[in-house]
Amino acid sequence: MGEEVSNKQVILKHHVVGCVKECDMELKNTTIRLSVPEDSNALLLKNLYLSCDPYMRPRMSNLVDSYVESFTPSSPITGLGVAKVLESCDSNFQKGDLVWGMTGWEEYSIVTATQNSLFKIHDKNVPLSYYTGILGMPGLTAYAGFYEVCSPKKGETVFVSAASGAVGQLVGQFAKMLGCYVVGSAGSKEKVDLLKSKFSFDEAFNYREEQDLDTTLKRYFPDGIDIYFENVGGKMLDAVLLNMKVHGRISVCGMISQYNLEQTEGVHNLFCLITKRISMEGFIVTEYFHLYPKYLEMIIPQIKAGKIVYVEDVAEGLESAPSALVGLFSGRNVGKQVVVVSRE
Amino acid sequence: MGEEVSNKQVILKHHVVGCVKECDMELKNTTIRLSVPEDSNALLLKNLYLSCDPYMRPRMSNLVDSYVESFTPSSPITGLGVAKVLESCDSNFQKGDLVWGMTGWEEYSIVTATQNSLFKIHDKNVPLSYYTGILGMPGLTAYAGFYEVCSPKKGETVFVSAASGAVGQLVGQFAKMLGCYVVGSAGSKEKVDLLKSKFSFDEAFNYREEQDLDTTLKRYFPDGIDIYFENVGGKMLDAVLLNMKVHGRISVCGMISQYNLEQTEGVHNLFCLITKRISMEGFIVTEYFHLYPKYLEMIIPQIKAGKIVYVEDVAEGLESAPSALVGLFSGRNVGKQVVVVSRE
Repeated sequence: MGEEVSNKQVILKHHVVGCVKECDMELKNTTIRLSVPEDSNALLLKNLYLSCDPYMRPRMSNLVDSYVESFTPSSPITGLGVAKVLESCDSNFQKGDLVWGMTGWEEYSIVTATQNSLFKIHDKNVPLSYYTGILGMPGLTAYAGFYEVCSPKKGETVFVSAASGAVGQLVGQFAKMLGCYVVGSAGSKEKVDLLKSKFSFDEAFNYREEQDLDTTLKRYFPDGIDIYFENVGGKMLDAVLLNMKVHGRISVCGMISQYNLEQTEGVHNLFCLITKRISMEGFIVTEYFHLYPKYLEMIIPQIKAGKIVYVEDVAEGLESAPSALVGLFSGRNVGKQVVVVSRE
Repeated sequence: MGEEVSNKQVILKHHVVGCVKECDMELKNTTIRLSVPEDSNALLLKNLYLSCDPYMRPRMSNLVDSYVESFTPSSPITGLGVAKVLESCDSNFQKGDLVWGMTGWEEYSIVTATQNSLFKIHDKNVPLSYYTGILGMPGLTAYAGFYEVCSPKKGETVFVSAASGAVGQLVGQFAKMLGCYVVGSAGSKEKVDLLKSKFSFDEAFNYREEQDLDTTLKRYFPDGIDIYFENVGGKMLDAVLLNMKVHGRISVCGMISQYNLEQTEGVHNLFCLITKRISMEGFIVTEYFHLYPKYLEMIIPQIKAGKIVYVEDVAEGLESAPSALVGLFSGRNVGKQVVVVSRE
C-alpha cells in the first residue's frame, strides 16, 4: 500500500493575465501515499531538480487552441525535471532509475510516461541537474535550432539574444565551435562578462544600457548578421531585421520579452524580409527528439573534456520555485534556472 | 545625327514622404534627338507600354542602403516597359526589335542594357502589353514566388492577398492548376467577382467589408492555411499568422499596405511562427531570372490555350501615368496596371 508522507506542492492559483507574480502561485502541504495505482502503467517519482523555462509563462495563461496546454488552476504546476523512480508499473522504467521529463512541482509525483515525456538517464558522471539544461530540453533546443534550422556555415556572423540563458549560452558555444563570429546580448554586466570570459563569445553587450539597438548591432556587425537566434522578440527583433545580411536566416526559438505583455509589441521592420531575402522560421524542440541520442553522443564527451561549459543558477528548495520562475522574466537568473527539490 | 522630336516625360518632382500624390510628379515637354550616342553601347527606345508596380513607391522615397535605388528628383521616373528599338549600338539588339525591361517614363529613352535589364521579345502572338505583366516581371514573380518559395503541394490550402493584382491573379491560377484550395482577398466587389468568375479562385472576399479578418479567415480556412502569398503586410499578415497551419509557409512578395505610411504598422502575432513552426521567406524576382525561359515555355501555351487568363487595367497616354501609379496604392486598378504610351 505504501507509506503516506507529506508532499509539498507549488500550486497555480489562477490563470495569469499580464505580468506573472509569485503570489499567482502558492505552496500547499499535502500528503501522498508512496505507491503506484494498481492496473496502471504509472510511475511514482521522487523529484530532485525542477526546470524553470520561459515556455511555462504561456501555460499559465488561459490559452485557447495553443501549442501547449494551459496549466490547471488549483493544481500543481507541471514542467521538466530530474527524478528518481520509486515505483514503476511501466516496463520501460525500473525502481531506482534516474529519469528526466515531465513531472510536477512537488516532492513526489505520479506520472504516466508517453512518447518523449520521460527519458531514462544513462550517464550519471555529469551533474544530474544538467538533464534540465544542457543534457535535456534546452540543450536539444540549442542543437536543433542552430544546426537544423539556421543552416550555419563556418565564418558566418551569428547573433544570439538572451545569450546567457539556458539555450543561448549553448548556441554561442556551438557557433564558436563551427568557426562563426558570435555576438550575444544579455541584461547585466555580469552576464556580458560571462558571455565573453566563459562562453567564448567574440563580443557581448548589455541591451539595457544601449540607447539604440540598431546602432549597437551596426557596431558589432558592420557587414551585417548572417544568423539570428531569436529568444526575445519585440524591439530586438526589429533592430535585428535592419541589420540582417542578404539571405540571412532567423531561427525563432522564443520571444521572452513578450510573454508577460497583455498586448504584444508590434514589429515594424518586416519589409526587410523582402529587401534582404531573409528566411525566418519558428521551431519547437519536440519535433527534434529523434536527434536526442545523436546529440548526447556529441555533447557528453565535450562536457567531460571541458570544451563546452554550462552555467546554472540553482535555487534551493521547492519553496524557492515560484520566485525562481518569476525571476526568469526579469532576467534575474544567471544561466539556466534550476530548482533543487532534493539532491537524492 | 537623327531628327529632333518632342519627348514628353513624367518627372518625379521630389522625394516623397508618406502618401504619394499625383502632384509629386509632373509632365514635362522636352525634346530628344533620335540617335544613339556614338562610342556607346546604348539603345534608343520608343516606349509603347509602361508598367505601374508597387515596388516603385519605395523608390520614390529617399532611401538609404536599400535593395532598390531611389529615383532621382527632377528626372523622369524609370520602370519596366515594352518598347521598340529605334537604334542600337548593342550587338544583342537590332533596330526594329521589340523589347521589355527598364526604361523611362517618357516617349523615347536612351538606355544601356545590363544583365537582365532588357529582354528581347520573341513571341509577338500575344498582347504586347503582357510583357509588363504575365510575360514579364510580375509573371515571373508569381511563378518563382509560388513554386520556388512556397513549396506547394496538391491539396494544400492557399491564401493570396491583393489577389486580383498583377501577381496575385497568377498565383491563384497556378495554385488551382496544382490542385490547391485557393482563397483571395481584394478591395472591391468587382475584384472579388473577378477572382471567382475569371481566375477560378474557390473563394474570395472584400477585405474592406470584413469586421475582423481573423474571423473571416477562419470562415474560409476552418482547418487553417498551408500557404500564404503575402502581398500586403500589416493587419492582414497579423490575421493570417493566427490562421496558419502547423508547418505553414509564407512567401513574402510585397507589403503594399505599408508603402505609403511614414511609420509602418506593427505586426503583433509573430509568436505564431513558433507555435505553428511557420517559415516565412522574403524574395525578389531578380534572383530568379534564370527561370524566365522555362517560365515562358510553360506559360505561353497556357495563355494561347486560354487556360491561364490575365486582366489588365490599361490607362491611355503618358499623361495618365501619374494617376495610374498613385491609384495602385488605393487599389483603384482592376488587374495589372499598364499605361499605353503608343501602340506601335
